[in-house]
Order: sequence, then structure tokens, then C-alpha cells
Amino acid sequence: MSDNKNNIEKELLSYLPEKDDLIGNLVSSMEYSLTAGGKRVRPMLVTEFAKLCGGSEEAAMPFACAIEMIHTYSLIHDDLPCMDNDDLRRGKPTNHKVYGEACALLAGSGLLTLAFETASSEKAVRLNGAEKCLAAVKVLAEAAGAEGMLGGQIIDLESEGKKVTADHLRIMDAKKTGALIIASAKLGCISAGATEQQMQAAVTYAENIGVAFQIIDDILDVTSSTEELGKPVGSDSENDKSTYAALLGIEECRRISRKLTEKAVDALKIFENGTEILEKFAYYLLNREN
Amino acid sequence: MSDNKNNIEKELLSYLPEKDDLIGNLVSSMEYSLTAGGKRVRPMLVTEFAKLCGGSEEAAMPFACAIEMIHTYSLIHDDLPCMDNDDLRRGKPTNHKVYGEACALLAGSGLLTLAFETASSEKAVRLNGAEKCLAAVKVLAEAAGAEGMLGGQIIDLESEGKKVTADHLRIMDAKKTGALIIASAKLGCISAGATEQQMQAAVTYAENIGVAFQIIDDILDVTSSTEELGKPVGSDSENDKSTYAALLGIEECRRISRKLTEKAVDALKIFENGTEILEKFAYYLLNREN
Repeated sequence: MSDNKNNIEKELLSYLPEKDDLIGNLVSSMEYSLTAGGKRVRPMLVTEFAKLCGGSEEAAMPFACAIEMIHTYSLIHDDLPCMDNDDLRRGKPTNHKVYGEACALLAGSGLLTLAFETASSEKAVRLNGAEKCLAAVKVLAEAAGAEGMLGGQIIDLESEGKKVTADHLRIMDAKKTGALIIASAKLGCISAGATEQQMQAAVTYAENIGVAFQIIDDILDVTSSTEELGKPVGSDSENDKSTYAALLGIEECRRISRKLTEKAVDALKIFENGTEILEKFAYYLLNREN
Repeated sequence: MSDNKNNIEKELLSYLPEKDDLIGNLVSSMEYSLTAGGKRVRPMLVTEFAKLCGGSEEAAMPFACAIEMIHTYSLIHDDLPCMDNDDLRRGKPTNHKVYGEACALLAGSGLLTLAFETASSEKAVRLNGAEKCLAAVKVLAEAAGAEGMLGGQIIDLESEGKKVTADHLRIMDAKKTGALIIASAKLGCISAGATEQQMQAAVTYAENIGVAFQIIDDILDVTSSTEELGKPVGSDSENDKSTYAALLGIEECRRISRKLTEKAVDALKIFENGTEILEKFAYYLLNREN
């Protein structure tokens, strides 16, 4: 898993423009967040599902980088003063704290745009062909757009300070976090030219770990220390956000996330072998401490 | 020209998601700026060059909508408090004045994302084929990204309050405004399957009207009334921005923009007929009053 992480981080940087005198700060700001030490969950899903469906890590890599760029953009914009107004992300000052609000805004948009440049790059086309690259663009845009991640963010914003149900949270998270996680699994399948059945299994796996992932985030926001988490603990309740932890209690949250993880692992049974990493990964997400 | 404008406005709206209870405000906010009465310069260039190179308006339309979405996103984000902090745009309150900063931020990103969804939509593929759609995605992403429009915006930000040369302004504008104008011409050519020579002529036309357009904007910011312009007059000098008008004087600016317009019209000579609208359009931009 850490080999894959190194490969991703090297390839991610290869898509950034040169830092010349004029746009150097913008590129540095994009690079700052891109290298701020994420878990690279989404790229891992892309390459693992590609390999599982008979494709290659190399061919899937441009799509893996594209989804990580979109994830990173969403974090930069989410941290802005007009959104969550966070000063820390992964234990480091947030992008706008280092580069200023205007540059952080542009850097986020730059990464979103770079994702589409990457998925339509010469390298991506050489390894996957134009049709698969266009399918990847479509999946990326739908997952990141108003009916996907951005939709989740507006629901999140409008839910602040309101009592909402666990069902409402589920719909919000399916868009806000789930859409990109599912897109990651799909992108791997697209690169590999997977069958309908393989695609469906990948989506089921991703859907279930997606929800588990979010529930565990909620738990960690309550139970973890700032040092472990890399961001201020309790920021959700401070920001008046409804959470699964508050609605259902920590114990019920743990039970549900275990169940979702089992469902996810179950979906992998249609594959004869090569599922070990994805299985371990589901349990790693379940048991993580930051 | 106004037929084309109506077609564009109708088709633009067709790509927006349904306004359901959950994401309704986000979609309304996207729609608000999309229908705020722009001149539709870029979509017009897309469809005119498509027709000029033997393609159809219908096939070029998804690409025309995509570039207008990107233009509109850039206006929403440009107006935000951390950028130009403008209250008025085209005579109406800016997006964040109506929907709040957070929603405006998301709406801008939503339109950027929707541009790529549109260029990779079933309709776009049915009319153009996957290869041309992917070429369009690539052109859109490169023009909108850190080496294109966003690069121009960071240069603009970092130039505030500094004395810069006219050359510096030219490079900044080539990215900030020029990149999308040139991309528009290219998109029309892509949809039509234009020759290398046609593509080059289209780019030359677009480059020259692009610079002229920006110089005239500078002139209007000094000479126009708020009512004519639809935004506060003198906002450039208030924001401490270097302008062509300040650097070269109004008369020299008028001379240069006339010369650029002639160069643009000259480039159209390789086409045997059908260039009337693009010719008139170049002179319309030169002589516009808002």
C-alpha cells in the first residue's frame, strides 16, 4: 500500500505546471495542498479496482491522480473562511492561512481544472484510449458537481444549526463524501474495461465503505485528540453540525460502521482473487485513529 | 446574432440539474448568474467558427455552453469579497450578494464542473463523437487552468498596487481573458473537424479580438457611466489596478484596439464566405459602449 502511495505522489506532481515568475505562487499553493500528506484513499481505490478487473496500475494512474486533485480542491475550499473556516488540516496550516484567501480560492479551482486536464492528457489517452478517458471525465464531473459532492456541501451548509435526521445525514454524506469514493471505484473499472457485474460490485464496495468512512470521521471528531487527528477536535459540534455520533451515539455508530464494512467486503466475493488489499483497506478504515 | 443568443440561453439551462428541496438553492444560484444577461461572446465564437469550418451550430452547441459556464464561474468567483469584492455585475447584485458567499463559491465551482459534464454529455458525444469531445475537454481545461485563465487571475492579484508595464498587462490579459476567447474559436474548429490552417486563422482572429476586448474594457471603465456599464465606473483605479488606459492614454488605446481588430478581420480572409458575422462582431466589440 505504501508503494502505491509513493507512486501516486510522484505522478500527482508531474501534472503541475512549471513554477515560473508569474504563476509560481499559484502552483506552489496547489502543490502545498497536494503534498500535505493525505491518506490517498481514492487513488488507491482507482488502482486496486483497475488491477482487480484485469487492467493495470499504470493506465489507471492518471484517473487516480485526477480524483485526488478533486478531493484536494474540495478540502482547500472547505477550509476557507466563508465555509468551515479551519486553520489546520492534517496537522498543517490550511492553504489560505499560508497563501491567503484569494490564492487558495484559485488554487482549489486550479486543482479541479487540472483533474480534467489530467484525465484528458496525452498520457491518459495513450494508456486508455479516448473513449475511456471521456468516460472518466464524465464520472469525475458528475461526482464532483451539483448533484454530487457540491450538492453535499450545500446540504451540509444549510443543515448547520438545524436538527436533522440520520437519514438526512446519510443522503448528505452520500453526495459529499460518497460520490467521490464511488467515482474512484468506477474509474478503476473504466480504465480496466470491467464488466457490468464487476462495476456493480465495485460500486457496492465503495458505497458501503464511503458511509462507514464518514461515520468513523464523526466518531473520531468526538473521541480523538487534536494531535492524533491533525485538526481541532470537536470542530463539528463547535460549528453546530449534526453528526451520526450525536444522533445515534458512539456505540451504535461503531456497530453500523462494522456492518457496512462487512457488506463492502462481501461485495468483493465475485472476484476470485486479488481482493486482499481492498479487504484489509476496509478494515483499516474501520479501525483507523485519525 | 440574437437568434444564436436565444438558442444558447435555452440550451445552457437544459444542462442544469433539477431544483429539488436539497440542492435547490445551489442550482438557483448557478442559474442566477448563467441567466444574468451576458453578451455570449464566447458561445457565439464557438458556433460561428464551427459553421465557418463546415460544422453545425447544433453540434457545437454543447461546447459553446461549456465555455460560457466557465466564463460565468470566473465572474462569480472574481466578484467574491476575497477577490474584487464587487456588489454589482451587469447591473444586478453579484451572486454572493444574493446567495451568500458560501453558496456563490459552490455555484462557481458547480458551473466549472458542469462545463466538463456538458462537454462529455451524451448529447455532445452523439453530435461530435468521443474523440472530439475529449479534445474539447482538453482545450477547456487548459484554457481555464493555472497556465490559462487562473494564471491570469493570480498575476492580476499580485499586480495590484504595483506599477507594471503594458507588456506585463498583455501577458496577464492573454491568460485572464485571452485564453477563453481563443479556446472558444478552437472549440468551434474541433466540433467541425477543421483543418490546421483553419484552426490557425481562428486562433489569430481570437487572439487579436481578445486583446482588443480587454483594452476597450479598460477604456470603458474610465469613460462610461455606471448605468451604461452595469457596474461601478472607475472600479479598476479604485482597486489600484494598472490599466492600458492609465499606461498608454485613451487615444493610444483606441488606436491599438482598431489595429488589433483589423488584424483579426484580416485573418478571416482564408475563408471564402460566411465571415460577415465574425467581421461585424469584431467591429461591434471595438465600438461597444458597455
